[in-house]
Amino acid sequence: MRTSDVFDLLRDGQPRTRAQLAETSGLARSTITSRIDTLLRLGLVVPIGGAASTGGRPPSLLAFNPAARVVAGVDLGASHARAAVADLSGTVLAERRTDLDIAEGPEKVLGWATSVVLELLEEARRSRGDLAAIGMGLPGPVEHSTGRAINPPIMPGWDRYDVPAHVQSAIDVPVMVDNDVNIMALGERHAHLPDVDDLVFVKVGTGIGAGIISGGTLQRGAQGTAGDLGHVRIPRADGIRCRCGNEGCLEAIASGAAVASALRDAGTDATDGADVVRLTRGGDVAAIQAVRQAGRDLGEVLATLVNLINPSVVVIGGVLADAGEHLLAGIREVVYQRSLPLATEQLQLVSSSAGERAGVLGAAALAIGHALSPDSIEAATLSAG
Amino acid sequence: MRTSDVFDLLRDGQPRTRAQLAETSGLARSTITSRIDTLLRLGLVVPIGGAASTGGRPPSLLAFNPAARVVAGVDLGASHARAAVADLSGTVLAERRTDLDIAEGPEKVLGWATSVVLELLEEARRSRGDLAAIGMGLPGPVEHSTGRAINPPIMPGWDRYDVPAHVQSAIDVPVMVDNDVNIMALGERHAHLPDVDDLVFVKVGTGIGAGIISGGTLQRGAQGTAGDLGHVRIPRADGIRCRCGNEGCLEAIASGAAVASALRDAGTDATDGADVVRLTRGGDVAAIQAVRQAGRDLGEVLATLVNLINPSVVVIGGVLADAGEHLLAGIREVVYQRSLPLATEQLQLVSSSAGERAGVLGAAALAIGHALSPDSIEAATLSAG
Repeated sequence: MRTSDVFDLLRDGQPRTRAQLAETSGLARSTITSRIDTLLRLGLVVPIGGAASTGGRPPSLLAFNPAARVVAGVDLGASHARAAVADLSGTVLAERRTDLDIAEGPEKVLGWATSVVLELLEEARRSRGDLAAIGMGLPGPVEHSTGRAINPPIMPGWDRYDVPAHVQSAIDVPVMVDNDVNIMALGERHAHLPDVDDLVFVKVGTGIGAGIISGGTLQRGAQGTAGDLGHVRIPRADGIRCRCGNEGCLEAIASGAAVASALRDAGTDATDGADVVRLTRGGDVAAIQAVRQAGRDLGEVLATLVNLINPSVVVIGGVLADAGEHLLAGIREVVYQRSLPLATEQLQLVSSSAGERAGVLGAAALAIGHALSPDSIEAATLSAG
Repeated sequence: MRTSDVFDLLRDGQPRTRAQLAETSGLARSTITSRIDTLLRLGLVVPIGGAASTGGRPPSLLAFNPAARVVAGVDLGASHARAAVADLSGTVLAERRTDLDIAEGPEKVLGWATSVVLELLEEARRSRGDLAAIGMGLPGPVEHSTGRAINPPIMPGWDRYDVPAHVQSAIDVPVMVDNDVNIMALGERHAHLPDVDDLVFVKVGTGIGAGIISGGTLQRGAQGTAGDLGHVRIPRADGIRCRCGNEGCLEAIASGAAVASALRDAGTDATDGADVVRLTRGGDVAAIQAVRQAGRDLGEVLATLVNLINPSVVVIGGVLADAGEHLLAGIREVVYQRSLPLATEQLQLVSSSAGERAGVLGAAALAIGHALSPDSIEAATLSAG
């Protein structure tokens, strides 16, 4: 926990002199000098010209160097995948999207992932040695500590499969795995809301789930299932069966699939959430009303979430978020009626800005978080001698 | 962040040699020596005899010294107060309980608190200089950063009152203030569940609230209102007005006051939660049924909480918890029906072990957390020269 202390002071991107670093950290000048030497040798910090001086030789400024290494982010969805190579500030250098069925199993899907990461590295003109870590999102429950999916409902062949080991057999770097909604929360925050410490990202797609960041930290809970909004009971869904085996779940009436199914019963040709969005955008009144009601149903559960967790921003993503204000209006109606005044006073309820890139940006952010963690910096310091 | 690194290694109470500390921390022996010297001078670490040796002079063991300083914890309830002086491990050295109406206002109540803390210090035979910090719980929403109550419903005269400044005018040490349910969560964990990182403490008293510890950290949320269970909507309460101004709140049907009121309507003499407990223990069937139903109503909201937060332990405290298994049985009925299997697989739903001492133990834990924080240790290191 030493070299990393000095590095953490520079991670905000603001250049500083050695004297400023000594003052802020309270460390001795000699200590600062030796730590900075290590960071310069690792390339994580670079000198960037002279500072305004009060006379004599201008003291040189030091700054975080996001180009020192790169990371890869891989977002695996149910039917598509996205991968990117980014620098240590999260700026994407190369990116790829493809249709890919997660049900084809881990060998095939992870084979695609590793070969695309290598291609993207080449596109970004970076070497394999430059790659510091890979972050990956899976569309199901993940045991973060081991990187394995646990009983994932839509991922045949993936249950407890050792994802990091498979990836590392092709690319030997640390591999961090999490579920898709958690990495979307990380991606939205990293790319658009870096100063927000209490953020909930709600994905309203085929299923419904949330990634919860509290006090600046992603909260996974004891078993890694935190954020499961989809199977909260909502009275309007009583008697309606859910794919989870229970009944009365939010997901059974407010997911993209559920709204499409209701519209199909009403005589439209909707088969999924994307169809619902298309109908809504086309001005179909039944679709608009159905989306608004899905928003109200979501609002019932989000009102409870706001009371329990007290976030400052709730971000709505997933395919149904593309229905725009209709969904948000329904959510706001109920949340502002049902949540505590003090909890909603400063609350922002917004659509995702990262959109369908939230996952891949978050996967890269997960990898950066690991690569620049104090433990990683110390390990690099030791091996740099 | 230097002396504290070494200190943190010793906080588990396990004695270690300088060589063990050097190995675990990766710090140079000379660095360890200088940091240990500081900790010895501060009294936070003491030598404790010889270790098993492989020959030659036995290396001396070093251990955390909880007696180095003391802290005070003050738990202010609606109609009673409790204060304690404890050592740095949280062991209570002296304690006092009294009836005290929070509505008498901050001057009177805080006057009691400061004079009792000084009395307890004497009882514990410790000097004012030994007191490192005071932790305090208030029965209302608290802005933790400033230690002020914000619009507290049952605390006339306390709104935005500068609690730390008032206390410090009598006893000049750091004063940490939080709401009563948050400190109960801290107290239960510190005293009975130190290894549990994901814990929710639910207080079912005149009101209903929760303190949430996730990933080992108390979660206060963006506005400090996290854990507000009491005003979550529950369908069975639709149409019933709540003291918060809304209707349909959990608190309006499942709090001690609400259950007592329902039993009064049924012809009993219950006026508050304590009466409900007395009737239940006496075998009154209507009371037992009412408590069981309150448990089910609580269970509806706790099932949602378990899905959203995924704690490993939910602790039930507050006066209605004294009704014992009847309340827990109702809660369990609904939580096991409604929460995700993966989230309830390892979940423990238990009554508070700390009971009515949870608050004062948590207030002391809050003070210890501050006194032994890296920042406090560094500050002490600097002033120790």
